[in-house]
Amino acid sequence: MYKENDQSQGGKLEWRLNVADGTSTTPEKLEPESCRRVNRICGRLRGLLMDVLVKIWMFLETVWNLGKNEPKKVIHCLKVGMALCLVSLFYYMRPLYDGVGGNAMWAVMTVVVVYEYTVGATLAKCVNRVVGTSLAGFLGIGVHWIANQSSEKMEPIILQGSVFLLAASATFSRFIPSVKARFDYGAMIFILTFSLVSVSGYRVDKLFELAKQRLSTIAIGTSICILTTMLFSPVWAGYELHSLICNNLEKLADSLDGVAECFKNGVGDAKEDAFSKKSQRYKCVLNSKATEESMANFARWEPTHGNFNFRHPWKEYLKVGASMRDCAYYVETLNGIINSNFEPPEFLKKHLGGICKKLSSSSSDILKELAIMMRTMTKSSRIGLVVEEMNFSVEDLQNALKSLPNQSVSSPEVTAADSCNDTEEGEPNTKPQIVPLMEIVPLVTAASLLIEIAAKVEGIVEATNHLASRAEFDDGDSQDNVKLMTLQKV
Amino acid sequence: MYKENDQSQGGKLEWRLNVADGTSTTPEKLEPESCRRVNRICGRLRGLLMDVLVKIWMFLETVWNLGKNEPKKVIHCLKVGMALCLVSLFYYMRPLYDGVGGNAMWAVMTVVVVYEYTVGATLAKCVNRVVGTSLAGFLGIGVHWIANQSSEKMEPIILQGSVFLLAASATFSRFIPSVKARFDYGAMIFILTFSLVSVSGYRVDKLFELAKQRLSTIAIGTSICILTTMLFSPVWAGYELHSLICNNLEKLADSLDGVAECFKNGVGDAKEDAFSKKSQRYKCVLNSKATEESMANFARWEPTHGNFNFRHPWKEYLKVGASMRDCAYYVETLNGIINSNFEPPEFLKKHLGGICKKLSSSSSDILKELAIMMRTMTKSSRIGLVVEEMNFSVEDLQNALKSLPNQSVSSPEVTAADSCNDTEEGEPNTKPQIVPLMEIVPLVTAASLLIEIAAKVEGIVEATNHLASRAEFDDGDSQDNVKLMTLQKV
Repeated sequence: MYKENDQSQGGKLEWRLNVADGTSTTPEKLEPESCRRVNRICGRLRGLLMDVLVKIWMFLETVWNLGKNEPKKVIHCLKVGMALCLVSLFYYMRPLYDGVGGNAMWAVMTVVVVYEYTVGATLAKCVNRVVGTSLAGFLGIGVHWIANQSSEKMEPIILQGSVFLLAASATFSRFIPSVKARFDYGAMIFILTFSLVSVSGYRVDKLFELAKQRLSTIAIGTSICILTTMLFSPVWAGYELHSLICNNLEKLADSLDGVAECFKNGVGDAKEDAFSKKSQRYKCVLNSKATEESMANFARWEPTHGNFNFRHPWKEYLKVGASMRDCAYYVETLNGIINSNFEPPEFLKKHLGGICKKLSSSSSDILKELAIMMRTMTKSSRIGLVVEEMNFSVEDLQNALKSLPNQSVSSPEVTAADSCNDTEEGEPNTKPQIVPLMEIVPLVTAASLLIEIAAKVEGIVEATNHLASRAEFDDGDSQDNVKLMTLQKV
Repeated sequence: MYKENDQSQGGKLEWRLNVADGTSTTPEKLEPESCRRVNRICGRLRGLLMDVLVKIWMFLETVWNLGKNEPKKVIHCLKVGMALCLVSLFYYMRPLYDGVGGNAMWAVMTVVVVYEYTVGATLAKCVNRVVGTSLAGFLGIGVHWIANQSSEKMEPIILQGSVFLLAASATFSRFIPSVKARFDYGAMIFILTFSLVSVSGYRVDKLFELAKQRLSTIAIGTSICILTTMLFSPVWAGYELHSLICNNLEKLADSLDGVAECFKNGVGDAKEDAFSKKSQRYKCVLNSKATEESMANFARWEPTHGNFNFRHPWKEYLKVGASMRDCAYYVETLNGIINSNFEPPEFLKKHLGGICKKLSSSSSDILKELAIMMRTMTKSSRIGLVVEEMNFSVEDLQNALKSLPNQSVSSPEVTAADSCNDTEEGEPNTKPQIVPLMEIVPLVTAASLLIEIAAKVEGIVEATNHLASRAEFDDGDSQDNVKLMTLQKV
């Protein structure tokens, strides 16, 4: 790292530093301890800085991807900014400001607190806020009036007692599932307003005036929220739920396609490519319960939009979702079995592989047909046909399993050639040889899981048909494309 | 309904009404149309009233049961009431009220909005509120200062522009998963405070004074929340998460016990009693992901409590939870197979039933052992032993399956007697007769699912052991009872 020149050059020491990588420029031997420590600290700081920079970079990348993949969310943010600018105009225009007094703050607060991503959630919060505030306001004024009638000593006791009782019971109501689902926010606003009114009433005389102003500012805030959220590219919870269910149907279909592909290529092969990519898509279905439930809750508040009217049977979507999850559990298990690296005997692969592939394809076809039916909101004339096709495949697979004992005890060499051509060959083979059952167990398990999956798919068909009749889907097929286009525009 | 007396009694018509059930007292023939309509409406109203009463009664029953089953929630409600009474003292005590001016309202609001069920959630909201308010307050004052320096025309433009930009970007940040999990509330408070400060600054000159008062009231509110939530029977998110995982382990174990019982009684029987009650308990595990995640999020904010210190590895609990869900999916499938009403041949039931029962019992034992290990927070010396036992059972089952071909092709009558006694009898039977594979498929599927479940249980063991080493569980066994008692006291 450093060179010491000849002492001959006038006995003067001269240092020459060879800076190679810019990280260490001081000679190690002669530098004092403190210098080295500083260096070490610098190095560490640099490392830390790099770490932080990399993390910031990754964070920004996540943010960028989020914005790019979901432009709706970006638009929502702009809408929030716009609503806040609109409501803050109340501060800048003197006549408006004078009209509501110092309470303009409440309008701003309402916009910030109430503005949600979907129209339904925003509406739910608006209604909750208005109802909760009015109810608590009137109750608060009533309690205050009662307290005023009593002696001066009793007044704070009555007020405090009522706050304690009502706050405790309203808080408890938030634990009740049916209340929590729809009126959680309202209960909180009720506690807030009641406490403020009944407590501040001790000081402020003009409670009615205050209540009027408060309600009018909240009305201003909520109407700005409702207008901006509904007029500028609205995000409807109902439509989102509808899309979620359609997407999940397609994802489940893709997974079954992946399974089919896997059977086609031979169970042991092609796990990396076809299977892992496609057939992992069902995983989204497993954990979508909470999202579906909250969406359905919000959708109930929404007015007619697109093809969904006010009394659209949103609860039926939850049933379709539940039946899909039931199916996805089986797909998860099948996935595990297929991925457990078993190698079925060649003759069995040929004997069952084709039928298994056919069954999973036809199950997948049904799900795709259901997805189209949902997207176009038109009853499908084909659905009966594809279900029948699947049932034939189930029967085929069952027959193939029935004819298996003959296969399983015959040697691969003897039967490989003829067994794959004719799957329902019923006569027992004449030269039975033992093939251990263990080798055929995984494939047999996979086949019987496929049969169970077919049953679950029928459950999905039933739930979707029920939804279709409750939601009064159209009968014809001709309007498919028109409808699809309308839906895409929403 | 009515009797017409003899005309002989002076030609006078006399009505006698036989009131039988009190529902219809007017004679039908002669009453006018309007009367009947009123009756019908009365009847309907009565029906409606009954419906409403029944619904209210059922609602009250739900509420009562909720309170009875979870007294912690009732206590929480009382705590909220108490905190509100405490904070409202600021209104009644003149020196306190004068100290914070008219801003005492903010203290009440803080208590209502910030008070959550668990300590962790309350702390998270408190920190979010304080940090969000301070950050936005200072930024707002800064922007206000800049706007003041510019021309009068530019002032509202700068203020509005900054509100638009910051509100939009803070709203967007709430969509980023990592921000949403920890700082969602803070981002909302940031938007709220910034809008209020930068907008109201147009009117109010004493911004700094206001900011000081606002922060002090928020500090009062948050400290009352933190004190009451931590001092009076605190509900720790960490402890709740820990209990949830323990309970889920036990529920999964119960389900496997149910499966074992089912195999013991013969697969087709006892579905109603033993199976349906016990083995449905795993269903809770399927949908606990969201709860676990939010609990783990809140637990990170909590200080040391009970056996959990500040840096307790809460994320590891999520891994244990995920591995349990993986297992529960298989249990769900197995459940479906067992419930599908198949009737395996008697000899096979005897041949496989016992081993299947043994395997599910030993899997269940492991889960119970893990639950004890978690509850006592002590590493188990037995766990290796029970895992080994399960692995032996897996091997037994695999061997039994291997020896099956000989069984499956022999007639039940010949082998029933001897096959069940010796499960690993390897020699082929001398008189093979065909038993259709279809009959043995469900049981074979169930058996191979049990083997997969055993593998998943090993995954749970691994995750739990990892948690145990990260959380530094104790080594000894002697302290079990002491620890269990300490935990129960928390």
